[in-house]
Amino acid sequence: MELMIPLVSRAGEPLYEQIYEYIKKEIKEGGLKAQTRLPSTRILAENLKVSRSTTQLAYDQLASEGYIEAVPCKGYYVARIDGLVDVGGQGETVSLVQEREEERESWIVDFSPRGIDLDSFPFHTWRKLSRNTLIDDNKEMFLSGDRQGEKALRKAIGDYLHSARGVLCREDQIIVGAGSEYLLMLLNLLLDPAGSVAMENPSYSQAYRVITGLGRKVIPVKMDAQGMRPDALEETGAGTAYIMPSHQYPTGIVMPVRRRQELLAWAGRKAGRYLIEDDYDSEFRYKGKPVPALQGMDTGEKVIYLGTFSKSIAPAIRISYMVLPDPLLEEYRKKAGFYASTVSRIDQNILYRFLVDGFYERHLNRMRAIYRAKHDRLIGELKRLEKDFFIRGEYAGLHLLLTARDKRPEEVLVRQAKEKGIRVYGLSSWLIGSEEMPQEWKYTVALGYANLSEQEIEKGVRLLEQAWIV
Amino acid sequence: MELMIPLVSRAGEPLYEQIYEYIKKEIKEGGLKAQTRLPSTRILAENLKVSRSTTQLAYDQLASEGYIEAVPCKGYYVARIDGLVDVGGQGETVSLVQEREEERESWIVDFSPRGIDLDSFPFHTWRKLSRNTLIDDNKEMFLSGDRQGEKALRKAIGDYLHSARGVLCREDQIIVGAGSEYLLMLLNLLLDPAGSVAMENPSYSQAYRVITGLGRKVIPVKMDAQGMRPDALEETGAGTAYIMPSHQYPTGIVMPVRRRQELLAWAGRKAGRYLIEDDYDSEFRYKGKPVPALQGMDTGEKVIYLGTFSKSIAPAIRISYMVLPDPLLEEYRKKAGFYASTVSRIDQNILYRFLVDGFYERHLNRMRAIYRAKHDRLIGELKRLEKDFFIRGEYAGLHLLLTARDKRPEEVLVRQAKEKGIRVYGLSSWLIGSEEMPQEWKYTVALGYANLSEQEIEKGVRLLEQAWIV
Repeated sequence: MELMIPLVSRAGEPLYEQIYEYIKKEIKEGGLKAQTRLPSTRILAENLKVSRSTTQLAYDQLASEGYIEAVPCKGYYVARIDGLVDVGGQGETVSLVQEREEERESWIVDFSPRGIDLDSFPFHTWRKLSRNTLIDDNKEMFLSGDRQGEKALRKAIGDYLHSARGVLCREDQIIVGAGSEYLLMLLNLLLDPAGSVAMENPSYSQAYRVITGLGRKVIPVKMDAQGMRPDALEETGAGTAYIMPSHQYPTGIVMPVRRRQELLAWAGRKAGRYLIEDDYDSEFRYKGKPVPALQGMDTGEKVIYLGTFSKSIAPAIRISYMVLPDPLLEEYRKKAGFYASTVSRIDQNILYRFLVDGFYERHLNRMRAIYRAKHDRLIGELKRLEKDFFIRGEYAGLHLLLTARDKRPEEVLVRQAKEKGIRVYGLSSWLIGSEEMPQEWKYTVALGYANLSEQEIEKGVRLLEQAWIV
Repeated sequence: MELMIPLVSRAGEPLYEQIYEYIKKEIKEGGLKAQTRLPSTRILAENLKVSRSTTQLAYDQLASEGYIEAVPCKGYYVARIDGLVDVGGQGETVSLVQEREEERESWIVDFSPRGIDLDSFPFHTWRKLSRNTLIDDNKEMFLSGDRQGEKALRKAIGDYLHSARGVLCREDQIIVGAGSEYLLMLLNLLLDPAGSVAMENPSYSQAYRVITGLGRKVIPVKMDAQGMRPDALEETGAGTAYIMPSHQYPTGIVMPVRRRQELLAWAGRKAGRYLIEDDYDSEFRYKGKPVPALQGMDTGEKVIYLGTFSKSIAPAIRISYMVLPDPLLEEYRKKAGFYASTVSRIDQNILYRFLVDGFYERHLNRMRAIYRAKHDRLIGELKRLEKDFFIRGEYAGLHLLLTARDKRPEEVLVRQAKEKGIRVYGLSSWLIGSEEMPQEWKYTVALGYANLSEQEIEKGVRLLEQAWIV
């Protein structure tokens, strides 16, 4: 094909730009169709009586903006431009945020158990700490840091865990990582490759997916009202049990001390047995005195403690941590000690200052009050449903459960709610493996409230009442 | 045991603080030994005639600072405080940075091939972008983002790769992750579990450690002057080959187009074969025209492209990416699509703006000029050694190689340099597997120059001359 491009000598408008503009227009308006081969830069230069560097410049510009594609050893082809954004122009200035907004479904009220309230996030403080970290051309912040996470940050996390959760550890037992999925990947390298993992059912299905995805067998274990049953666990032959003693997700069961001791005893009976304690939302508790972490009761180096700042600060900061017992710490040093940290040193420093300057504690106190108010409001509103529903799991965390007294299955509850524009979550979405839903959870849905206003909570429950009762 | 604490009524000094101070002093001075059990808060309150909340407050404070430990169901014990930092006081205000400073060994000049120059880092811009991202209480930034990485960032990376490296891909083929080790972990989930990986030898030993650590067999493959030998690769029976065609690490070999085609042909001969192209430092090139990435030559969906901003921006920001060919993208969606992103959304947004607002290009141009100047200076200084050493791998990247004409082994070269306070790196540190160092690299050391000043380069080479020649 030949391109006849009318070139004019104009001050301030280089020839290559005229070629570029012409071809771009042709492509946009469909005159040049996708996959059309363009003349080589040499041929085009000869035809237009311009230098080859001029045509090359025009093609480079077009290629860099995605209008044409260079296929090595073949030449230039018109690219498919469906939805191509004009990189040079204004099209690209939309912020990253808008994208997500559009993705959301339109519910009147979404009782998502995964949300958190960010309205009270201390943006000002975070900004200030971020600024201070970057100030003075703080060069060191941009160099590689400690592989386990910055030592001072680990110490601060250890201090917090000690005072708030009764976790007993040295800072060198703590590994900081970008999210609990990554930490589970690391942990997987440390455990006996042949051992399987026992998990409560229903449970945190993301952990189930990660662990099975890594090629490890996961065995669902029955729970009773106190959590994972030790006899059922013993039967599985698993080497590791993954539990959430502070507030089981999603059932909300708080494991009593007695049961914890039984599980520790299970771990103690054989070398190489471990308990993974996922303490994901232990920061929030509304009734009774705080139950310290299982880790603090462990005298046999059997507990791997997993924690995260996703719930207590924000999901997007991607900072989690695990506390390893000494035998696994040794494995870590051998098998994974060479992995570089997955968390930016700048972010680690911001978090460090947030912890040691007392902002975290203040933030937690404020969030506790906010969540408690929402929690109490939800409990208050749910009084209307009390005749027809049990409330469970309401002592801690950011969600609770409703069970239909008339044994209406969760699918019906979810569908009826949906018809009124309300989203609630059937417990089957947390089922792991191929087992059927245990009887006691068949008529149950989860309601999260963290990112709802009290008005939304009220409205949501009113609509649920209409959906389910009236 | 009983504690007799002399309490006085003093304005402004609460009773609990006197108790706290007394016990702290006792512990610090050794009056109370580690593991000593303290009286319960009830007993102490009775003894001192204060309320129990007063003693509880004092104990909580001591526990939160690590002086005592609460052992559930048992009581409070004095903690081991060797090296305990006074959290309440000034001790904890050291910045994270100082720690690292102390760790460094004291070389006169360290020709580390891993360093980068941060003196010219656009701190001001980064700070500004960071501030703009956090401004306006940008709540969405703190919520979970796209699992593969923010779409707009992936598009920006794709545009950059297209124009700068000739990489041909859609943004949905790009996965953003916290470092290339993490991306290799993800990739490992997508490749045939039974397949082994062929790697050049010597090679990037961190990738070797990660891949073997994941339980996958790695087979070292001989190189010739053009890089990995296709016949040797064929013999390994490997399913995947890990190569660095733009600038092999550490040998600096730039793989010619012919060899690239041979390796692509190898991959094309069997379904399920792939080439991992690690393009870790392709941004920096000093001689000849830039060789586009192998990925752009691949018409058979055989190349997995790995890139990072560790070298071109900074190691601590922990942002890398990989471009998957469609068959592996499908595997990714099935097997790893549920993993949350490991990079903070805030950091992704900062990088996104850095890319699309043109700062990255400007930064690269500036760094290219800076590195070229250092490179040229090093080459210039090395003229003094030319009689006794070959220089190799000097066209690209941030390090080059010196080979002793007199076949002096690298251990000797490294030791002689060390005696003058100069650190150079023997190629054996990049050996993988248990093979011996290939003959041609036995007398070779690597010299990086990225984070050295021109003065240091001059001084370093002078001292090397003294160490090796005079």
